[in-house]
Amino acid sequence: MAAIQRIGPSRLSPTRSRAVLVNGLMMTVAVSSSKTPSLYEQTKDALRVLEGNLAEAGADSSGILLVMAYISRIEAKDEFNRAWDEWVDPEHLPLRACVGAKLEGDDLVELVVTASI
Amino acid sequence: MAAIQRIGPSRLSPTRSRAVLVNGLMMTVAVSSSKTPSLYEQTKDALRVLEGNLAEAGADSSGILLVMAYISRIEAKDEFNRAWDEWVDPEHLPLRACVGAKLEGDDLVELVVTASI
Amino acid sequence: MAAIQRIGPSRLSPTRSRAVLVNGLMMTVAVSSSKTPSLYEQTKDALRVLEGNLAEAGADSSGILLVMAYISRIEAKDEFNRAWDEWVDPEHLPLRACVGAKLEGDDLVELVVTASI
Repeated sequence: MAAIQRIGPSRLSPTRSRAVLVNGLMMTVAVSSSKTPSLYEQTKDALRVLEGNLAEAGADSSGILLVMAYISRIEAKDEFNRAWDEWVDPEHLPLRACVGAKLEGDDLVELVVTASI
Repeated sequence: MAAIQRIGPSRLSPTRSRAVLVNGLMMTVAVSSSKTPSLYEQTKDALRVLEGNLAEAGADSSGILLVMAYISRIEAKDEFNRAWDEWVDPEHLPLRACVGAKLEGDDLVELVVTASI
Repeated sequence: MAAIQRIGPSRLSPTRSRAVLVNGLMMTVAVSSSKTPSLYEQTKDALRVLEGNLAEAGADSSGILLVMAYISRIEAKDEFNRAWDEWVDPEHLPLRACVGAKLEGDDLVELVVTASI
């Protein structure tokens, strides 16, 4: 088995990792640390958290392959898109899917990300 | 970092890729180009779009590893299954999960796919 | 294309695999075989099914990278967490995300898992 690097634990719970790395692939999960009721603001914050997780592994957003986004209100997807469009690097466009799902507590967005490192 | 090939941008938006490839893995997202109210028809069309995305990268459906399907009405899953069963190659069965989620606009199905190339 | 190993078909359907393996990565899906109305019990059972799927490929839970969990009632996430915490190996913490989604029939939880083998 290839060596697995586990970074963490998660800031949310001691029973899961914040990121895992194997064979040049990294997976990580990010939610907003602020629970503001604005999806735009939570998305901006979750993307900041994501960048922090990548930086911990010596990576950055240029290696992001896929962002799977779950948002609590699909009707507000425009707010998610606005934060995304302001953040995204046109030279390194990730693949992205964004669907509506129920999230815990006051979370409005959750990002499950695969990156190359 | 391994070389990443990005295909796109997405037909839906200039701020994301249509597919990404790294180290023999490809990820892509597909929705139906037709917004017919039939989940069966949208699934057939999304699978056609998926095959087009694979072909752009010189791949085909024999390399599909995982199809993560989000459908807007879980009650209609039989229609999704029917389109799937007509499409799937018994010699190369993908792994599959299909759950109900809220989708944007008139989308009834969204496919997030990992393939080997 | 790297050699793909497909294990299956799925216990749920002849038209999909139970697990796929390529280049040291394994992906598999697990639901509870019992349809008890307790999310705690279904989660415990789904984790047992997951371990069985891993064992079929000569792998075990120490190689799990990501568990993407879909649960039918986000309000009951505490039950999912309890089963998780009792099961997880602190020496090999997976990355995890858990969101609420609509599931088929009496399923309360569905796990989509990526592991290193």
